[in-house]
Amino acid sequence: MSNPVVGIVMGSDSDWDVMQKAVGILDDLKISYEVRVLSAHRTPLAAANYAQEAEGRGLKVIIAGAGRAAHLPGVLASYTLLPIIGVPIGGGPLSGVDALYAIVQMPPGIPVAAMAIDGAQNAALFAAQLLALHDPELAELLKTQRERMAQRVLEKDACFQSRG
Amino acid sequence: MSNPVVGIVMGSDSDWDVMQKAVGILDDLKISYEVRVLSAHRTPLAAANYAQEAEGRGLKVIIAGAGRAAHLPGVLASYTLLPIIGVPIGGGPLSGVDALYAIVQMPPGIPVAAMAIDGAQNAALFAAQLLALHDPELAELLKTQRERMAQRVLEKDACFQSRG
Amino acid sequence: MSNPVVGIVMGSDSDWDVMQKAVGILDDLKISYEVRVLSAHRTPLAAANYAQEAEGRGLKVIIAGAGRAAHLPGVLASYTLLPIIGVPIGGGPLSGVDALYAIVQMPPGIPVAAMAIDGAQNAALFAAQLLALHDPELAELLKTQRERMAQRVLEKDACFQSRG
Amino acid sequence: MSNPVVGIVMGSDSDWDVMQKAVGILDDLKISYEVRVLSAHRTPLAAANYAQEAEGRGLKVIIAGAGRAAHLPGVLASYTLLPIIGVPIGGGPLSGVDALYAIVQMPPGIPVAAMAIDGAQNAALFAAQLLALHDPELAELLKTQRERMAQRVLEKDACFQSRG
Amino acid sequence: MSNPVVGIVMGSDSDWDVMQKAVGILDDLKISYEVRVLSAHRTPLAAANYAQEAEGRGLKVIIAGAGRAAHLPGVLASYTLLPIIGVPIGGGPLSGVDALYAIVQMPPGIPVAAMAIDGAQNAALFAAQLLALHDPELAELLKTQRERMAQRVLEKDACFQSRG
Amino acid sequence: MSNPVVGIVMGSDSDWDVMQKAVGILDDLKISYEVRVLSAHRTPLAAANYAQEAEGRGLKVIIAGAGRAAHLPGVLASYTLLPIIGVPIGGGPLSGVDALYAIVQMPPGIPVAAMAIDGAQNAALFAAQLLALHDPELAELLKTQRERMAQRVLEKDACFQSRG
Amino acid sequence: MSNPVVGIVMGSDSDWDVMQKAVGILDDLKISYEVRVLSAHRTPLAAANYAQEAEGRGLKVIIAGAGRAAHLPGVLASYTLLPIIGVPIGGGPLSGVDALYAIVQMPPGIPVAAMAIDGAQNAALFAAQLLALHDPELAELLKTQRERMAQRVLEKDACFQSRG
Amino acid sequence: MSNPVVGIVMGSDSDWDVMQKAVGILDDLKISYEVRVLSAHRTPLAAANYAQEAEGRGLKVIIAGAGRAAHLPGVLASYTLLPIIGVPIGGGPLSGVDALYAIVQMPPGIPVAAMAIDGAQNAALFAAQLLALHDPELAELLKTQRERMAQRVLEKDACFQSRG
Repeated sequence: MSNPVVGIVMGSDSDWDVMQKAVGILDDLKISYEVRVLSAHRTPLAAANYAQEAEGRGLKVIIAGAGRAAHLPGVLASYTLLPIIGVPIGGGPLSGVDALYAIVQMPPGIPVAAMAIDGAQNAALFAAQLLALHDPELAELLKTQRERMAQRVLEKDACFQSRG
Repeated sequence: MSNPVVGIVMGSDSDWDVMQKAVGILDDLKISYEVRVLSAHRTPLAAANYAQEAEGRGLKVIIAGAGRAAHLPGVLASYTLLPIIGVPIGGGPLSGVDALYAIVQMPPGIPVAAMAIDGAQNAALFAAQLLALHDPELAELLKTQRERMAQRVLEKDACFQSRG
Repeated sequence: MSNPVVGIVMGSDSDWDVMQKAVGILDDLKISYEVRVLSAHRTPLAAANYAQEAEGRGLKVIIAGAGRAAHLPGVLASYTLLPIIGVPIGGGPLSGVDALYAIVQMPPGIPVAAMAIDGAQNAALFAAQLLALHDPELAELLKTQRERMAQRVLEKDACFQSRG
Repeated sequence: MSNPVVGIVMGSDSDWDVMQKAVGILDDLKISYEVRVLSAHRTPLAAANYAQEAEGRGLKVIIAGAGRAAHLPGVLASYTLLPIIGVPIGGGPLSGVDALYAIVQMPPGIPVAAMAIDGAQNAALFAAQLLALHDPELAELLKTQRERMAQRVLEKDACFQSRG
Repeated sequence: MSNPVVGIVMGSDSDWDVMQKAVGILDDLKISYEVRVLSAHRTPLAAANYAQEAEGRGLKVIIAGAGRAAHLPGVLASYTLLPIIGVPIGGGPLSGVDALYAIVQMPPGIPVAAMAIDGAQNAALFAAQLLALHDPELAELLKTQRERMAQRVLEKDACFQSRG
Repeated sequence: MSNPVVGIVMGSDSDWDVMQKAVGILDDLKISYEVRVLSAHRTPLAAANYAQEAEGRGLKVIIAGAGRAAHLPGVLASYTLLPIIGVPIGGGPLSGVDALYAIVQMPPGIPVAAMAIDGAQNAALFAAQLLALHDPELAELLKTQRERMAQRVLEKDACFQSRG
Repeated sequence: MSNPVVGIVMGSDSDWDVMQKAVGILDDLKISYEVRVLSAHRTPLAAANYAQEAEGRGLKVIIAGAGRAAHLPGVLASYTLLPIIGVPIGGGPLSGVDALYAIVQMPPGIPVAAMAIDGAQNAALFAAQLLALHDPELAELLKTQRERMAQRVLEKDACFQSRG
Repeated sequence: MSNPVVGIVMGSDSDWDVMQKAVGILDDLKISYEVRVLSAHRTPLAAANYAQEAEGRGLKVIIAGAGRAAHLPGVLASYTLLPIIGVPIGGGPLSGVDALYAIVQMPPGIPVAAMAIDGAQNAALFAAQLLALHDPELAELLKTQRERMAQRVLEKDACFQSRG
């Protein structure tokens, strides 16, 4: 794959079930990416290094998924000025509310953009929207993708109307 | 002010106390912006029009603040491919948890980037980080701003250490 | 079916499992209705048009079901003065609390009548109660339906009493 | 006042601060109403009687506000087929979440239309929308009221735009 | 069965799975009881009558189980001075928190004694403790039951200790 | 004061503001009581002793108020078969939800009767209802007290009606 | 097993599924322990005795797991100055939030160290970290265990990188 | 002050109001400490360095207080094997529940010991209990402090008893 512009990072490989939905979107939109397993708690130096080197390596945006006390997006954000998109991973006793709060409630100064619990798909789309600001071809692809999405809703609507 | 690249939209002028913190940041970073009051519920057509015309008017990113059943960021996102940053406004009986859920739990397909409750400051910083991807001067300003922020923490740390 | 007086709208066809309980009630009460799939986020214009034209098409009340950041009832309400009954769809990591808050916490000016999470049955009954205000025959049907419901409880009560 | 069509009932006179916002709306819309203090727990028979006689007395809709374990709207709904609009009163240790759940989570069969916590204003507007289905003059008043509301938002928007 | 002193009332026969745990305890303690299905919402008059006549019929305490907007315990309490023990029934999207709040947050003046969600067993034990205040034989039985319960814990403790 | 039949216990004298509402009720109903400060955590032996000796000292029921991780009611319940009524004390960051859960969610075997957050008044009334089962004079007083309470609601109702 | 230094106590043997994860960790780290079943509510004296004698018996730290109104860790803490580590057991209608609040919200004066819901593994690790302060061999083992843990993350990372 | 054995770290000097309660306790118990301001997000390297060097500098335990998305305790824990005690700082729209979840819900492998929201006092006591395991003089001081604490409760109890 060509030089990745999106980094998809997860705190544990058990997050892959959720995070791979981001990969599907990026593939569709022909956006280059890399997938990494980096734990804010178990491999803090590797996570810090990744964030510090990300810009130099040509990344433009990082999608970070983590569950429970989900520190990964915030930790990455503390080491880089690249936009960080956080995906709270659900499951567990608190169903992802813990991860959501740990990601979205960042203190003033170090922003993280939170998506819905398990919202890896939207993380990829939001990353694409950022990149499309300076990539007209990608902007066109996004527009087409949205129209197809609307089309699918309208088809289902037509289906229900015809049942009446 | 020159052609705005950031749109700051709020559902009610009572949100201004919170949202003006975004303005302060953008001023510091010399990013042009406009401030609008547009209600997803009371002026739905005006809100829809704003989102539909935003890209054509040269906006690059929209910051939308709203409270309670905070539909504004999602409604704007449904009409444009520009990145939408949502700020849940706190206060009220549910302290902003209602606004947070209504903003962050967007369904697959239409992303909104949620900030902390009342996190207008981070919304502006995140917008700046997006813009800095293609604006080296702004990137430099952001770096400086972060260093000053770190400096202020270190000064307070020194102050506490010297007390010991 | 004759000209529908109730519009049943859902944000996604995956909401059908819940929303069809409304259909069952309306069938029993011989109330004409239509079922539509319209997404506040994926087909915002179609949703807006539907609400704007609803009154002219003879609809009297709209039941709107949606999950997560459930904006559909509020978005419809912003375009019409017909009564909107919102059904928060459960499921997902937050079990429908997100949908409930996004529906019930509407700001002053644009009311939406919230039902229980997954409460499509009561949405249909409430719609029927509205229509019965000017339809004595329907009022009679509703009275009979309530009596049968009470009868079923009393029969179960009798069954438990006889066990003693 | 002429024969009331809307009954405004509260479980305690301490709810008056919230509920009087409903009165203001009904006055503006020239809708006749009555205000009652009836407790589901302290005066259960009076509450039951009120609901049982409401339809015969010419009422068309009942707005019921209650806090904490807010049983009043559900209790009234169990004795009448008139539409009941429930207003959860906030305050107290649980900020009205207890009242919201006790009102909105009605079991299948006996619907109550829940408004936002402290949402007495919307309760009155929703009642008006019901009545307007068969009252063209009121429908016209509601349309005007909505336009003025939108106008006020647009004026504030203009004010912020001119500051730029 | 001899004249019942405990009334076990549930809002729906679907609550029987939980409520029958109360029956098991009362059987063990040789306390006479009756089981009734009475809905606060679907059979409000029957529920009111039951509570009004309970004392005259020789009942000493009522255990009432209900789910969601669980009004049954509070409604019974409003019609009698007998002690009412409320059991919030779990399940449903809010897992019984709605039922808990609707039962425990009773306003000053009309108390209901709330047990844990699905805590029908403790409801029966608490009823027994009330009755034992004036029934030395029952007090003795309760003491024995507690000792056996402790014994079972100690046996399990011994089992784990011997594993070591 | 004559031999107390109700023990009012609080975990800290800072709970007195809430708990004294119980005292007012008991005074009105001429029920003898004692007030104690006993901490489940800071004076565990004193709390255990109190519960163990309560029955022998003639107490019939114990009202226990505690905040935060409110173990006091459960700890007392573990040492006596007297009915324990728990009052979750509100305030603090979690507004008493922590205390409510720590009191109401008792495991099977050791019941505690939970009142509303800060519901000391109802705790006293519930204690009175227990005692009234074998005290006809007290039963009469309670009946009168309820009637006066209803009367006060009806007076307020009359006042609002006459305003109309 | 040699004289235990860690006591693992659970309120019910149904907590064993969770608590045995602590045992696995302690076995790996060659730390001696004992496993006990002691209920704060069903065997209060046994629990009190255990805590009172723990220090004399050579224990250095106690891990206590309990669910729902989880009083066990706090009750043990009230009888000893040994560090108590509390593990809220999940499951049940409130998913362990009740247990978490009942463990973590201890009042000033009697600390309990709360772990994550079902976090028995971390309880054992935290106990080990305490003991390692005065046990260089154990400190070495812990360091190795952390490195292996990091190694496993890095291997998974390498695996994902090579897929690219 | 002699070589500190306890490190008190806070994410912002605005946490000092809460954290200074820990200082008071440590002063009373003659435990040496240092106070630092280190932000996991604004000064990540300084925070990482602090944790990495803590053991070498002679620290035995670290108390870390942080609010909102409270990553500080977890970040420190990821860089050291010293026991980390986390204090969730309350305030803000979510009253510290966000901080609590972000601190207590640590994933398996990297434990943090969570105290109550704003529970800095207990953090200091827990640190003291750890240190007392190998410091008989401190153990004696702690015992005295607990006895005085119990004494104060008993005095208040006596005061209430004498009022009776």
